[in-house]
Amino acid sequence: MDQRLTGICPWPDVMNHPTVAEYLLDRLQVAGVDHVFGVPGDDVLGLYRKLAASPIRHIGTTREDTAAFAADGYARCRGIGALAVTYGVGALNVVNAVAGAYAESSPVVVISGAPGVDEQRKDPLLHHRFGPFQFQREIFERITCASAVLDDPLIACREIDRCLQAVRRDSKPIYLELPRDQLDVEGFPIPSAETGTDDSDPGALAEAIGETLQRLERARDPVILAGVEVHRRGLQDFLARLVTMSCIPVAATLTGKSVVGERHPAYLGVYEGALGPDSVRAGVEGADFLLMLGATVNDVDTGIFTARLDPARLVHASQDQVTIGHHRYADVRLRDFLAALCTAVTPKVRDWSPQAPLSQLPDATPGKPMTVARLIACLNAALTPELRVVCDVGDCLFATLELRVHERTHFLASAFYTSMGFAVPAALGAQIASPDLRPLILVGDGAFQMTGTELSTFARLGLDPLVIVFNKHGYSTERFILEGPFNDIAEWRFERIGELIGSVNGYRVQTEDELEEALRQALATTGRPSLINVHLEANDASPAMRRLAEHLGGRVNA
Amino acid sequence: MDQRLTGICPWPDVMNHPTVAEYLLDRLQVAGVDHVFGVPGDDVLGLYRKLAASPIRHIGTTREDTAAFAADGYARCRGIGALAVTYGVGALNVVNAVAGAYAESSPVVVISGAPGVDEQRKDPLLHHRFGPFQFQREIFERITCASAVLDDPLIACREIDRCLQAVRRDSKPIYLELPRDQLDVEGFPIPSAETGTDDSDPGALAEAIGETLQRLERARDPVILAGVEVHRRGLQDFLARLVTMSCIPVAATLTGKSVVGERHPAYLGVYEGALGPDSVRAGVEGADFLLMLGATVNDVDTGIFTARLDPARLVHASQDQVTIGHHRYADVRLRDFLAALCTAVTPKVRDWSPQAPLSQLPDATPGKPMTVARLIACLNAALTPELRVVCDVGDCLFATLELRVHERTHFLASAFYTSMGFAVPAALGAQIASPDLRPLILVGDGAFQMTGTELSTFARLGLDPLVIVFNKHGYSTERFILEGPFNDIAEWRFERIGELIGSVNGYRVQTEDELEEALRQALATTGRPSLINVHLEANDASPAMRRLAEHLGGRVNA
Repeated sequence: MDQRLTGICPWPDVMNHPTVAEYLLDRLQVAGVDHVFGVPGDDVLGLYRKLAASPIRHIGTTREDTAAFAADGYARCRGIGALAVTYGVGALNVVNAVAGAYAESSPVVVISGAPGVDEQRKDPLLHHRFGPFQFQREIFERITCASAVLDDPLIACREIDRCLQAVRRDSKPIYLELPRDQLDVEGFPIPSAETGTDDSDPGALAEAIGETLQRLERARDPVILAGVEVHRRGLQDFLARLVTMSCIPVAATLTGKSVVGERHPAYLGVYEGALGPDSVRAGVEGADFLLMLGATVNDVDTGIFTARLDPARLVHASQDQVTIGHHRYADVRLRDFLAALCTAVTPKVRDWSPQAPLSQLPDATPGKPMTVARLIACLNAALTPELRVVCDVGDCLFATLELRVHERTHFLASAFYTSMGFAVPAALGAQIASPDLRPLILVGDGAFQMTGTELSTFARLGLDPLVIVFNKHGYSTERFILEGPFNDIAEWRFERIGELIGSVNGYRVQTEDELEEALRQALATTGRPSLINVHLEANDASPAMRRLAEHLGGRVNA
Repeated sequence: MDQRLTGICPWPDVMNHPTVAEYLLDRLQVAGVDHVFGVPGDDVLGLYRKLAASPIRHIGTTREDTAAFAADGYARCRGIGALAVTYGVGALNVVNAVAGAYAESSPVVVISGAPGVDEQRKDPLLHHRFGPFQFQREIFERITCASAVLDDPLIACREIDRCLQAVRRDSKPIYLELPRDQLDVEGFPIPSAETGTDDSDPGALAEAIGETLQRLERARDPVILAGVEVHRRGLQDFLARLVTMSCIPVAATLTGKSVVGERHPAYLGVYEGALGPDSVRAGVEGADFLLMLGATVNDVDTGIFTARLDPARLVHASQDQVTIGHHRYADVRLRDFLAALCTAVTPKVRDWSPQAPLSQLPDATPGKPMTVARLIACLNAALTPELRVVCDVGDCLFATLELRVHERTHFLASAFYTSMGFAVPAALGAQIASPDLRPLILVGDGAFQMTGTELSTFARLGLDPLVIVFNKHGYSTERFILEGPFNDIAEWRFERIGELIGSVNGYRVQTEDELEEALRQALATTGRPSLINVHLEANDASPAMRRLAEHLGGRVNA
């Protein structure tokens, strides 16, 4: 558990009790929150005033859902993110984004203002109200790992502690509702209640490690398959050390993409069952020992359950247990397992052969129409350690199976929950969390129509993401599954968005040479957003997308 | 209860049972749904294919929340509206808009696709999933009056009937979840179960009518205060007849605005306690007999509870009861009460004096900066019976206390739930529901940044709303309550939105003469949207807004 959250003395000055708002903002900052995203509203204005006077910076977004996506992106980079919204109209606008953070294990703190305890007493019909006052919390209880309404000053500080412990422990969103007349009420910081140990069972851990090592030593062709939880639990250092020491090649799941840097010779690529690259599939499924670390068995990562992983050759360490063959060690934490493995594994030395180049990039042919394959090849060539890819849903996501980022955590996506419109606002959070990394945003035309105007906030703050619109003229993933007029959308001139929202360099690209020139210019322009609207054929698609659509098509009831 | 929903034979061909999808679409159409709004996604694609083959037209929007606002606007014009979205990412994006429809008694049918019953059986981790499959319904149970998961073909048709009866009876949203493998399963239409009578208690009704008439006959200066439920329950004909026969002047609440046409000499204006116009307040609070019909006692309509309505002079008929003085008649429906009153009231004749002109409109002074007052005066002059005002939140709403629309239901707003971003998408639903009425959309700059790009859908469909952006450079309502940097937003060139999204006539207006010319041009342009970006001083405000902000300011904990 994070030391910063369980100190014996949660408030340094035992003689001066903080107010509830002071305590909340202090604890947030101690937990790592330097920025809070959101849109003001009357039930949260008082807290906004406190925020403005605190060291935490408020980042205003154009909408609440984009604030939540931004907090999610921030959380994936920083280990915690936060948003503050008003009651009803604000909070209910973030339900989808917060559910996405829950599904994707992103530690987001949702703070909702609320009418004052005193105002609520007679149950009046106040604007922004949609039912019994507690309904909002009941909704958020279904998409958070802990929630509290801070309506009782006697326990408010302890409730804040409890929820902030949960957000770090479970790496899932939490919900804090703050009635506006409770901001300045005196709180009572007390040592946190013990929330139970989350240590591993030492016997189970030792036995699981022993059996794993035994199997590993017999293996001639072991492979590691690393998943999203390694990132979310902050275990990437352990994983890197394990790979370096053991010299075992490592593949990643799609939701875990960039859990390791992708330009290292030990990196095999993204494994996604029958939908992923054949070479990675051969490596993972052909291994005589597969060590799955923090990977989740979901439909995306298993390539719609086409993964063929032989249990007899498998050790699968998930967040709280290790499964070997057909037996299971309960109460073994991923952190403890990885740490123990790093210590116990026999160091090896290996002459890694250099990574095969991912895709050919012949010189641009003037006038030749762009393709998805060419686009990905160009992006692979353009990627540097200073670029972080933030990816939306659809073929831009599937195409990134072929993309290799330089450093770990340089790829963010809603790859499991697959909520369209994630990328632009999540990249806002990412760039604010990591000002030295420029976001390279990959997004389809349909998804950009959902949240793309959030580029306005980048422009206002002088941030400089580079947006690549994969413009396939409609909902092209759906076209592959089931074509119909409902997949058509309006054609936007994305490159002209700056006319509306502010200072944005825009480029419209149809051919190889146009892309080359636009990329060159955009990469050279800093201090404001750039956007390249890449026109692609509607029926062009990445290999993974073709295979995925084939599988999904069979599942649509028609 | 609506005859169309409770016929003895819900399906004409008793030998050929429909599939669940056929039955659903048929019942929707019978209920009045000619258009369904939404964004496709894999769990709802099969239903979209059925929709495309049905007489119901699908209207694609750029986002799901705007689809829900559009369905809400449509429902307010047609008596029912519908949207269809995919599971998780689609449905959870409409929670706020649907909660708003609930709070504002708008009969919206939410249809969510879902993974198939068979797919769900083994509880797999499918994309778009955020928790136990039933959590989505549990969330919607809190913002709808009825909900069903159509996972059992034996009762699916009856469940559809039950929910469609509820949406009309309660004029609130309903939720139907349709697992995608249930579309083509045979359903079993059976006569609807009796859902209990909603007739009034005859004795209570007769006594309440008797006492009301007695009081009315003693009154020398009676006034009617009509509220939103008169519109939502389809009782405007009764109200109009009552006013015509009894010759009693009528005021409306803000949430009930346009429950009667506002250019009739019997119309007093909007009553909003101390926040509304003094003349209306004097009329309503000074009446020796006040007949409140379908008005809700909420903070908006009572002017933050500043309304001073003497119970001794009050008859208050709400949806299910009538309160006279300090006693209450239970089980008296508004419909029955109004109908009986129309029959029983003593007809009168009155020489109405013509309505006082609402505001002076001197000739435009070239170069003179625009003000809110001048803007409203210009709009009053420009209003015709062919324009329907759809209004967002903030000062554009408060300013409409001074605006008088020509016909009933020619003013739509989220005046109680006050969700920013309502107007543009709700107007889309309104214009599709009523193609002969051109929407005049009033919206602030902050709200337009939330959902304004939905103008794209108008442009795609060749619809021609006229958007007036009340541009006060930030969250100006909040500025009046509590000023701070969090109220600043990016300055958009709204008039150039056509550069991004399609064919839109845009105008930027700072002065009186510029507005006059822009209005003239915009009103003359049909077949595509027009937008006038009216720059106003940040501290300019309508009288109601000044009074409101004063009251709200006192409630913010600071």
